[in-house]
Amino acid sequence: MAYIHEQRIQFFDTDKMQVTHHANYIRFFETARTEYLRSEGLPYSDMEKGDFQIPVLGVEAKFKTPSVYDELIAIECRIGKIAPASFEVEYEIRNAETGKVHVTGRSRHGFTDANLRPIPLKKKNPELYNFFMRLSEQDKK
Amino acid sequence: MAYIHEQRIQFFDTDKMQVTHHANYIRFFETARTEYLRSEGLPYSDMEKGDFQIPVLGVEAKFKTPSVYDELIAIECRIGKIAPASFEVEYEIRNAETGKVHVTGRSRHGFTDANLRPIPLKKKNPELYNFFMRLSEQDKK
Amino acid sequence: MAYIHEQRIQFFDTDKMQVTHHANYIRFFETARTEYLRSEGLPYSDMEKGDFQIPVLGVEAKFKTPSVYDELIAIECRIGKIAPASFEVEYEIRNAETGKVHVTGRSRHGFTDANLRPIPLKKKNPELYNFFMRLSEQDKK
Amino acid sequence: MAYIHEQRIQFFDTDKMQVTHHANYIRFFETARTEYLRSEGLPYSDMEKGDFQIPVLGVEAKFKTPSVYDELIAIECRIGKIAPASFEVEYEIRNAETGKVHVTGRSRHGFTDANLRPIPLKKKNPELYNFFMRLSEQDKK
Repeated sequence: MAYIHEQRIQFFDTDKMQVTHHANYIRFFETARTEYLRSEGLPYSDMEKGDFQIPVLGVEAKFKTPSVYDELIAIECRIGKIAPASFEVEYEIRNAETGKVHVTGRSRHGFTDANLRPIPLKKKNPELYNFFMRLSEQDKK
Repeated sequence: MAYIHEQRIQFFDTDKMQVTHHANYIRFFETARTEYLRSEGLPYSDMEKGDFQIPVLGVEAKFKTPSVYDELIAIECRIGKIAPASFEVEYEIRNAETGKVHVTGRSRHGFTDANLRPIPLKKKNPELYNFFMRLSEQDKK
Repeated sequence: MAYIHEQRIQFFDTDKMQVTHHANYIRFFETARTEYLRSEGLPYSDMEKGDFQIPVLGVEAKFKTPSVYDELIAIECRIGKIAPASFEVEYEIRNAETGKVHVTGRSRHGFTDANLRPIPLKKKNPELYNFFMRLSEQDKK
Repeated sequence: MAYIHEQRIQFFDTDKMQVTHHANYIRFFETARTEYLRSEGLPYSDMEKGDFQIPVLGVEAKFKTPSVYDELIAIECRIGKIAPASFEVEYEIRNAETGKVHVTGRSRHGFTDANLRPIPLKKKNPELYNFFMRLSEQDKK
């Protein structure tokens, strides 16, 4: 079961096509995955104190239908593939009421130290590695 | 030969990792392709008067190295594949002085009318279709 | 009694000083006043259907202390002075837990039609005018 | 004589009112004052290496007429009042061709060290203080 974060499209999220500007969805991805990790007991600010970061290595998105001002959207996110030094997150953004799909996407993240140097997490911090593994398992259900 | 747009990383482009926030590169892509089309005689505002738009259908980016505040970046963009009702643009963002690659990416766009309904451009507006074909050819050289 | 909207500082809200970038507070003002009007039964999207808008004529903000990533902030907003064709909103942004003040500010808005032409609201739409008057009274308590 | 920075309104700068979103002008102020200081030989990144910052203490703006997508704007900025530990910058944003005024505003900045602690600049770094004084004088002409 995936995590779902809801938020409302703000005026400043729209552009002159009168829909949400596409680049903002990349920010919505970030909000949802941060809230997901917090809800599981791992606030990102805690990670950073621990000399640990998960910078974005890549992102992709497909914009299927536009969302509009004042619309309540639901950003579903789930942990995807986990490698020794990176992992993926998958997203689906829908209208929170009708379920209509607006955007799908994924991001890839590295496990790094505070100076953005890659960390082989499985080896260096098995507890944190298992945390991500557990989320990934639970998201498949 | 591809088009190159240069711009400087602003303070508001950075985040607390002290590098450019990844979502901003998606905006930089937009700036570069708009400037490209203008430089070729097709300002996007003109397109819109002509009941024509090129909404973003999809985008992807790989973040290879960070760019930093005050850095001058060069955004190279070239028209990629052109289909009857869509086309692609490819991007490479580098440090303007050293040439170090920061980000690569691509976006896919539909040809639509002002109400975001797809237009088979080749059929409906062969002149505009040929404009994009010519750019694509010239970018391969 | 003023309206309070809470939200969390996101990664993309911060800049390389490792605090919230000042321009983002202007957006937070917008979010709070929109949510306020919705909570009182006047979603802004409804206003627009009614050929009515409240564009920002001016804004000011004082940045007293920085807010940081992952912090929960409380944006208090209250309707201030109401004139025949404009009104003010006042803001105070605090840490939601400690109450420490980060930012104070105000915005001034016109009552206009969909084409941004001023409307003497008191005369043209007394019901809507009274709605704003009622909020202003209630915010003073 | 004031410094003038020109830039073009991008698609992502607009909102569903089909004009530039007001909060973006606060970012334009920042771009212009940064470019101004660079043009005078003081890139902000250099300042920071010198354990020195100029955080924004306050900002205000009046939105007089809207600017639109693809418009070339001219952001005029001049150093205003200088106090021992702070200074002001004044802005006027116009259409670069017609001179029509869109926005006027001002920002107030502190002189601080890298940890945002105020510095009495006149005393601690007279050279830098005189740099700002010189700009202020020259902007009055």
